Amino acid sequence: MALSESELIARYFRSCGVQRRDVVLGVGDDAALLECPPGAQLVATTDTLVAGVHFPPSVPSAAIGHRALAVNLSDLAAMGARPAWALLALTIPSADEHWLGEFAAGFASLARAHDVALIGGDTTRGPLTVTVQLLGHVPHGRALTRAGGRPGDLLYVSGSPGDAGAGLAIEQGRLSAPAEAAPYLRERFRLPTPRVALGERLREHARACIDVSDGLLGDAGKLAAASGVGLEIAFAELPVSRALVQALGPEAARELALTAGDDYELLFAVDPARAAELERALPGAQWNYHQIGVLRAAAGVVVVRDGTVMEFSHSGYQHFA
Amino acid sequence: MALSESELIARYFRSCGVQRRDVVLGVGDDAALLECPPGAQLVATTDTLVAGVHFPPSVPSAAIGHRALAVNLSDLAAMGARPAWALLALTIPSADEHWLGEFAAGFASLARAHDVALIGGDTTRGPLTVTVQLLGHVPHGRALTRAGGRPGDLLYVSGSPGDAGAGLAIEQGRLSAPAEAAPYLRERFRLPTPRVALGERLREHARACIDVSDGLLGDAGKLAAASGVGLEIAFAELPVSRALVQALGPEAARELALTAGDDYELLFAVDPARAAELERALPGAQWNYHQIGVLRAAAGVVVVRDGTVMEFSHSGYQHFA
Repeated sequence: MALSESELIARYFRSCGVQRRDVVLGVGDDAALLECPPGAQLVATTDTLVAGVHFPPSVPSAAIGHRALAVNLSDLAAMGARPAWALLALTIPSADEHWLGEFAAGFASLARAHDVALIGGDTTRGPLTVTVQLLGHVPHGRALTRAGGRPGDLLYVSGSPGDAGAGLAIEQGRLSAPAEAAPYLRERFRLPTPRVALGERLREHARACIDVSDGLLGDAGKLAAASGVGLEIAFAELPVSRALVQALGPEAARELALTAGDDYELLFAVDPARAAELERALPGAQWNYHQIGVLRAAAGVVVVRDGTVMEFSHSGYQHFA
Repeated sequence: MALSESELIARYFRSCGVQRRDVVLGVGDDAALLECPPGAQLVATTDTLVAGVHFPPSVPSAAIGHRALAVNLSDLAAMGARPAWALLALTIPSADEHWLGEFAAGFASLARAHDVALIGGDTTRGPLTVTVQLLGHVPHGRALTRAGGRPGDLLYVSGSPGDAGAGLAIEQGRLSAPAEAAPYLRERFRLPTPRVALGERLREHARACIDVSDGLLGDAGKLAAASGVGLEIAFAELPVSRALVQALGPEAARELALTAGDDYELLFAVDPARAAELERALPGAQWNYHQIGVLRAAAGVVVVRDGTVMEFSHSGYQHFA
């Protein structure tokens, strides 16, 4: 059945996500109308997923809907922001109702979990491409950025990087993992967990923060460069999941944790004088983060194993390299 | 030469558009950080252009950059909003530096004209797709919407609809226009003029407004439906350009003005008791708009020619019909 654009929007997207009182006018006019929260600054980001580039054809549309929002939530988490409003630009080859229903459900489920309203968008015909723009806010002057780190700061990462990279390799048939590990790793690729609650709380504790999306090593380099420092990562301290070790062994698991993309974890720097306070307020075991290194004055990012510096040829995913 | 994503952003997009004092942090961190204007509501929209769907391959990249921003500016104009900040999600098959330079120049030129800062974006590899998200603001409670029209209101349209549709037909080789008309019509398709200044001023005068992007007849139907009214358009009153009449003759020119897309003009309804005030404040000859009809209580949109109602089979462009 052929759906017009307005029927498609009405059916799948008019009440996708939550209703928010600060949305004066949502989907259905030329633009959305929103109340700015008093005393806050606005935080805005956008990320695109392209079929065949950011996910293989095997990924179900519910996961595509989830991912498209998750990668944007992760950007806001890195700023310590609270998400509020999303715009969805969806380009699809045809209006397949089953596909759309699952896509909208995957998007809506994550939107509800983070109190995000879908306030507008554009549906167009063409090769499958999903762009989400996400708006949120932070208390005035309190945003986390990449730029606040200082030499001596402790460096932490949330979650277990590398899992999503292994999940993608399984998805693409490049890696065959044991049956007890494969479903978990695939799910870490398909349904990333943006660390929104952690990011908001880190405003009180971290000096600098970035989301790990293009590979830990490369993103650590961006945080270091923006802060005007270098950093050192202890290879042995990299938190890797049991499933990733089962799939690759402990050595290759940590190498993948450094280089694979799609983690959507937070990497953050904390004043060592305030590390005990961080651990009291947000226990690492409960909030799922680990110290993996330290910032230093000398520029560059080094990874140290058994007292020697490791060489990496691939320092993160480059879309146009 | 292969460009990394960050080199590409630094070279073409870091200082694209204007610098604004309300941009605390622009391109280069995980998200942008913005000052909400006090006493204002935020207005947000997004539109996507897909190569081969929204423009043919013959359109130069400078025009694509212009159009991608223009179509979003037009949405904000329809709300009576002042544009401020744009996010650009650009999916391109390869990082062609000439293409990118022209694209960025086309985007930047229109951004400067409307005081818009490019605050962030995402560049990805894939089939050419351009999504812009545009944010702006209106004084609290003063936005124009589609919903305020009442029976008896006078209906106006800006510019000369149909020109862009003829320009697209020329671009696609479906129409051959006389040499004195073709360049103008092509330019009306390639470089639409969003009516931002008119939209802002119409906050004081119009009861309802919509931008004409999918065809005047179809978009008039949307304004009527949202306002809970119908409307009547006088065929003879449709403003058509000299070039369009040269290309098609007066009859087909007005038919195209009703049905073609890509106009990016404003269609708006004004209380007849305030029409003289509108004409004094914003003279039609200077601001380039014309009365084309009237709102009425009976639902539906009719076009009247010589006292009889015209039938239209094609009431606007439908992406998925």
